[in-house]
Order: sequence, then C-alpha cells, then structure tokens
Amino acid sequence: MLQIDKLSLNIPPTTKARVVVIGGGFGGVNLVKKLSGKQFQVVLFDRQNYHGFWPLLYQVATAALEPDSIAEPLRKMFDEDFEDFHFRLVRVTGVDPITRTVTTLIGELTYDYLVIATGTKSNYFGNEQIKNFSFPLKQIPHALDLRSQLLQAFEQANMTKDEMVKQSLLNIVIAGAGPTGVELAGSLAEMRKHVLPGDYPGMDFSKMNIYLVEGLDRVLPPMSPQSSAKTHRYLEKMGIIIKLNTLVESYDGQVVTFKGGEQIHTQTLIWAAGVTGALIDGLPAESVERGKILVNEFNQVKGCSNIFAIGDIALMKLEQYPKGHPAVAQPAIQQGQHLAKNLQRVLRNEPMQPFKYFDKGSLAIIGRNRAVADLPGKIHLSGFLAWVTWLFVHIYYLIGFRNKLVVLTNWVYRFFTYERGNRLIIRPFVRKDDKVGQEFVSRYRQD
Amino acid sequence: MLQIDKLSLNIPPTTKARVVVIGGGFGGVNLVKKLSGKQFQVVLFDRQNYHGFWPLLYQVATAALEPDSIAEPLRKMFDEDFEDFHFRLVRVTGVDPITRTVTTLIGELTYDYLVIATGTKSNYFGNEQIKNFSFPLKQIPHALDLRSQLLQAFEQANMTKDEMVKQSLLNIVIAGAGPTGVELAGSLAEMRKHVLPGDYPGMDFSKMNIYLVEGLDRVLPPMSPQSSAKTHRYLEKMGIIIKLNTLVESYDGQVVTFKGGEQIHTQTLIWAAGVTGALIDGLPAESVERGKILVNEFNQVKGCSNIFAIGDIALMKLEQYPKGHPAVAQPAIQQGQHLAKNLQRVLRNEPMQPFKYFDKGSLAIIGRNRAVADLPGKIHLSGFLAWVTWLFVHIYYLIGFRNKLVVLTNWVYRFFTYERGNRLIIRPFVRKDDKVGQEFVSRYRQD
Repeated sequence: MLQIDKLSLNIPPTTKARVVVIGGGFGGVNLVKKLSGKQFQVVLFDRQNYHGFWPLLYQVATAALEPDSIAEPLRKMFDEDFEDFHFRLVRVTGVDPITRTVTTLIGELTYDYLVIATGTKSNYFGNEQIKNFSFPLKQIPHALDLRSQLLQAFEQANMTKDEMVKQSLLNIVIAGAGPTGVELAGSLAEMRKHVLPGDYPGMDFSKMNIYLVEGLDRVLPPMSPQSSAKTHRYLEKMGIIIKLNTLVESYDGQVVTFKGGEQIHTQTLIWAAGVTGALIDGLPAESVERGKILVNEFNQVKGCSNIFAIGDIALMKLEQYPKGHPAVAQPAIQQGQHLAKNLQRVLRNEPMQPFKYFDKGSLAIIGRNRAVADLPGKIHLSGFLAWVTWLFVHIYYLIGFRNKLVVLTNWVYRFFTYERGNRLIIRPFVRKDDKVGQEFVSRYRQD
Repeated sequence: MLQIDKLSLNIPPTTKARVVVIGGGFGGVNLVKKLSGKQFQVVLFDRQNYHGFWPLLYQVATAALEPDSIAEPLRKMFDEDFEDFHFRLVRVTGVDPITRTVTTLIGELTYDYLVIATGTKSNYFGNEQIKNFSFPLKQIPHALDLRSQLLQAFEQANMTKDEMVKQSLLNIVIAGAGPTGVELAGSLAEMRKHVLPGDYPGMDFSKMNIYLVEGLDRVLPPMSPQSSAKTHRYLEKMGIIIKLNTLVESYDGQVVTFKGGEQIHTQTLIWAAGVTGALIDGLPAESVERGKILVNEFNQVKGCSNIFAIGDIALMKLEQYPKGHPAVAQPAIQQGQHLAKNLQRVLRNEPMQPFKYFDKGSLAIIGRNRAVADLPGKIHLSGFLAWVTWLFVHIYYLIGFRNKLVVLTNWVYRFFTYERGNRLIIRPFVRKDDKVGQEFVSRYRQD
C-alpha cells in the first residue's frame, strides 16, 4: 500500500539559500547540474523518477528503441556527489509567492528561489472527445500505449474478415506535422516497408495508410522553407499522405472528422498537434500568457522576483524571438545553465546577466539516409549527411553513458538488418470506457 | 476500441495435417522451429506476442536489464521464412478431444495434432489473500510491477518519519528459495550494497532487510547438496536472512505471518514459493495429476492419442525421473525438438521414439563472482568459474542476436561500474484495492 498519510517531504532545515526546482526535464537537470551544494540547498520535485530524452520518444512508440534506453533515473544523475541535493518523487499542487511556499500532495516547503521547469503538456484546445480518444506522445507510458495500440491493430487486422473494420485498423492518422509528427510518420513508413510484411505474410500492407495532417501550409513549420519542402518530398516518396491546411474537428474513437467535413475511419489518431504549458496554481494572473509563464531576460517571472521559469513553460519575448524561443531542448538546456550562473551572481550580490540564446540549429529525421538540418549561418543540409549528423547529435546528447552504448548497439544492428526488436505488447492497451475490451483483456491475464 | 465481435481466427483451410500449439514458451517455440510448413500447417496461440527468456526475469525486477532485452516478438522468430505458419494473439479457453477442436475467445479451430505447451503459473495453494497482496514473478508485467514497487518503497522510506512504516517499507520478504528466490535475493543484496546508498545519501540501508524463506531444509532444493551449502554461505555473506523449514501462513499486505506465529512487517512479499500447471479445460480427468498433464514417453496425453503436452505442464514419469523432469528450460526445449521429429515420423507412418532427457546441468547466480553449477558427471563448480559459465550460457541461450548484443553491453557496463541504469518507475504500482493510492497516482497523471 502507498503510505500517503505517513509521508512528508522530509527536507532538512538549512541556513543556505534553498532553491526549489519543479521538473527534471532539460531545463531542470541542467540547472541542478551547475548549482553547487556548497552554496545552495537544492530540492528537485518531479512526478517521475527519471529524466527522459523526449526527442527519441517516437522511436519507443514505433518499436525501435526500448523505453529504458531514452531515460535516466534522476537519482543516478544526481547521486551522492551532489551535496545537499534532495529529490522528491511527488506532484506539486501550487505555489504561494507571498509566503514563498510550494505545496505538494504530501506537504509544503518554503523556498528562497523557485524555478518552474515543468515544460508542456498536450493541448486539445478544449476538445474533451479528442482528449479521451486520441493518443498523445509526451511521456514514456504514452509511447508504450501507442506501441501496444499499433501492434494490437495489426494483430486484429489479421483476424477480421470485415473489410471496413480492417481498413479502420490499418489507417493511422497523425495530427500535427511538427518534428514529432514528421518523425513518427517516417518511422511508421519504414516499419510498413521493412518490418510488417515479414511479420504478417498474408496481409496486404498497401492498405495501411499513414496520414499526416497539418493545420498550417507546410510540414515542419518551425524549420526553414527549404527543409520543409525537402521533407515534404521525402514523406511523399515514402508513401505518406500529407494533408496541409487541415484541422481536426472531432474524433469519436472510430471516425476523425476534419474541418470541411472530410472523414477518415481510424482506430488510431495520434495527437501531436499542439502543446500548452504545464502551469502551476497560485501564480499571479499577469504572469500567464497563452498558457505559458511570462519571464524577463533573466527568466524572472513577471511580478515575482524570486520565482523563475525556464524551458518550454517560459515565454521570454525578446526582439529576436517575439514569440519566445523554439520549443526544443536547446533553449531549455541553455536557460538552465544560465540561470545557475545568475543565482550564483545573486548570492555574490552581483547583477544578473540577460539570457542570450545560441542557436545550434535544428534537425529532423524522416527515414534511413533521409534527414534535414537547418544549421547556423543559413546552412541547410539534407540526405545522408543530415542523417549521419542526426545520429551523432542524438547519441551525443543522450543522457547517460549506458544509454549511449545501448542505443548505438541498437542503431548499428538496425542499420544492417532493418529489424526492430521491440515489438512487444507488454501491457495491452484498452481504453477506459471500452468495457468489452477491458473484459477481454482481463481474461488474458493469468496468475 | 478492441473489435472483439468482429474478430475470427481466420486460419486458411488446409489439406495438410494441422498442428495447433498452445504457448510460445521454450517448449512451443522449439517445436515450431523444427516443424516444416511443407508437411504441416502450424498454428501457434499465445496471450502474449513475445517469447520471454524467463531465467532473466528477476534482472528486470531489480533494474539490471530492460524488459525488451529478455523477450523476442514471436512474429519476428517465425517470419515469412516459415511457410504456412500462423500466429494468433488470443487466449485459448478449452479443448474438446472428441471433436478435435480448440476453442478461443474469438472462435474455434479443429486440429489434427494439438500440443499443449502452456507452462506453469504461480501456485498460492488456495490462499486468496496471499494471491491478492504478494508479488508473483512469472511474466514481464510482474517484473515491472515489482521494480516499481521496490523503487516506490525506497522513495517512500525516504519521505517518512514514522520508523515503523519505514521499516516495513525496507523489509523485503521472498517466499521460496528456488532459483528465482535465490537469484532475486542476491540481486537485491548487490543493489543494497552498490546502488542504493549512492541514490539515497541520507538513508541507512543497514535497515534494509532481505528475508529468504524456504519451506524445505535447504536453499536451492533442486540442486546438489554441495551447491545448496555453497549458496547458503554466499547468501549469508551478502547479508541475506535465510529462514529454512518456514512456511508462509498469511499476508494481508502489511504483515506476513509464518506457520509457528513469527511475523514480519513488510510492504513487499515476493511469491516464488511454488507453481502449478496452466491447465486447459476439457481434458479428461484421468490425464491430470497434481496440476500437471500426465504424458507417456512420447509426450502423448493420457487417453488422447493426438494431444501432446511438453515442458513444465507435462508430467512424464520415467524410472529415472519418477516425479517428472526438472522445471527448467532444457526439458521443455528438448521435448519440443523431440516432438517435432515424432510428428514427422507419424506422417511417414513410422513409430514414434521415446523422449530421453539429456541433462546439461544446472546453474544459479548469487552475485558478482558468486555462482554455483551442477554439471553432468557430478561436477560441482562455484565462484568465479561458475559465474563466468553462467554469463556465457545465458548470453548463448538468450533469444535473438539483438538481445544478446544489448544484454552483453549492459553486463559489461555493469561489471565495470556496478551501475544499474533501469531504475525507472515507468508505471507506478498501486494495488487495485488501495483506493487512497489509486487516487494519489491518478493525480500524478497528466495530459
């Protein structure tokens, strides 16, 4: 049993300045890495006990990598070498800027500096039906649910004589052609070409349709027009059906309806169409804009001098980035590192320095030998060179030496065999409201 | 939604003899590998879409290996190279020997030869309370649940000031000192020594107790007395508390009570104390004995000439093995291979040959450099040599080249660092009847 009523945060009292960090993503961990326990007591809260390398999450969903390879336990990252560091696996429920207190499910804690690094969550734009029936791809359990769903759909397609049902099992609709949507579509197309025909010899995979649906007028809108155009051609060559300027209006678990009326029967709608900040209760209303937290160039939250926000949750409007920085790992990493230095400056009574984003470029992979890169200085790469760059960058930034080794082993193996070894339905996926399915799956379980 | 009512088995009609195999464990897959699609139509049923290498399951539970490394998708093992082979992800509900029919959740199928290779499930000896509250370790989801439970217990122990609760979180009781219990105990002891103190700098792990409880008078009862004695010394040296001649009487999720009255407060009782055959409805009563299926030396089920049982579910009483073969992988593998040859003989109107078990010996690992081996010819190894043998044997028999590579990478890494990279609580574990816990965890979830 969980012993909720017997738990407390149990943070030792301190005479040092206490920094409370909410969220162990790219921003949070890069901040904590640079904060010395000699100067600060550092407390990190997260609902998960690991830091995930989310740019590779779609590879878990498509059975290319195992979930444990893209995540690192936070306690392993910050072990006994980190003096006066305290991780707590707990959900934060609110903040009170007046009393400088953070509240959690099991108690509260005062802070000297609070850093909000909670990132984003899927945005369904208020559509509860889409939220209930579509598959998000933001966390490891999401990726495993989607993997189970895809594999179950193929198994079921192989076991039905009803052509309508079969087609709806073989239609996959991805809403949103940002990096997640594009990379997922490419990965599914490779699976369709190289893996599935061997797995299901009797099945006609020309009937498997991968739809990539985007509300704007090009794929990969955050990247350069050159890269978008190149990606568009790659995707079409791989047989992905692209629908631009198309918005999803509704989805009831069976039929997705677009604005304009067109419909597609599908059991699998993947929602990569938008995110919104994972906000925390208690911040002043003036500090929130379009679901994000307004910060100045020091990452200070508007109206709260000792609360900071970094990464995707933060909205820092600079002249060069009037809509904030791109929602990728680099701004979060750099803001985390920069804020650590600023907090040390504050401790030394020095003025804080404004954050400057160093754009290292952006990359997307569409398939084997197919990738695009926008590098600084308006250099645009594509093809094999971009693909190799993508591989090395992702190995380099992957957390943990063990993960680098395991992922490299997997990729080398996959390069030569096209194989994907992770096609396991570990936990069958069933929707909560699918009573027949629940009953069915529960009868699968055995002691 | 799962489309249960729209599914059917969809097996093409055939003029060849149809072999239906239930279960993709060691017995089932080794049988199927040797059956040619030119001679037989082969149908394999399993509730899971993968073959698992269960001897390493305890390493998943103790965060040493990722789940995907010890399992191989059945469709990958039997791909398009296997002619007229049909895998169906479905649960078998019964068999009718008279009409030669197997029934499943989504329809029935006639067979010419039926092979039952369903293995075993945990045996709670009728104690529903133990079944509800203890942790079995027979399937990958079990291992992941146990991994979550152990890590959550440490997190909670770090967050409570109640010494009684803390002690009950740090007490781990393993019922059953067979290979699973012993290897699990050893792995937990290594975790306690090399991993946990770095993860929880403030916590006193001398309070973490690992109890290994056995009803018989020695650990590893299936192995030689020499190996039992050596293992006993190893375990004690590693600080494991061994209780022999001790039976668990009850467990309510908080307190385990032994026959005789002694009690231990624990949140984690691991049940490795016994298994029983995973039987199928419809077999004649005379064919079942002590939860297993009685077979003759051709693996033929008593009273059913064209039904066979192989592996752990089969009870073949030979002069040399009056209680049946040991419940390990080798007899299952060898029976599967042998039965394939016998079915081919039947097709050629030749007499079947009786099964002869070739004992390759048995091995158990207790820790780094600590293992025991009973080899043929009454040779008993222990220490470093047995440990190296164990490593190589397990790599050799591990399914799939990719898995061999990944596991080897992990083991080499672990040898040099003592690290375990898989300490992720991917899905929090909460008991179904723990309402407070369910509520707590559901509030962890986010969109």
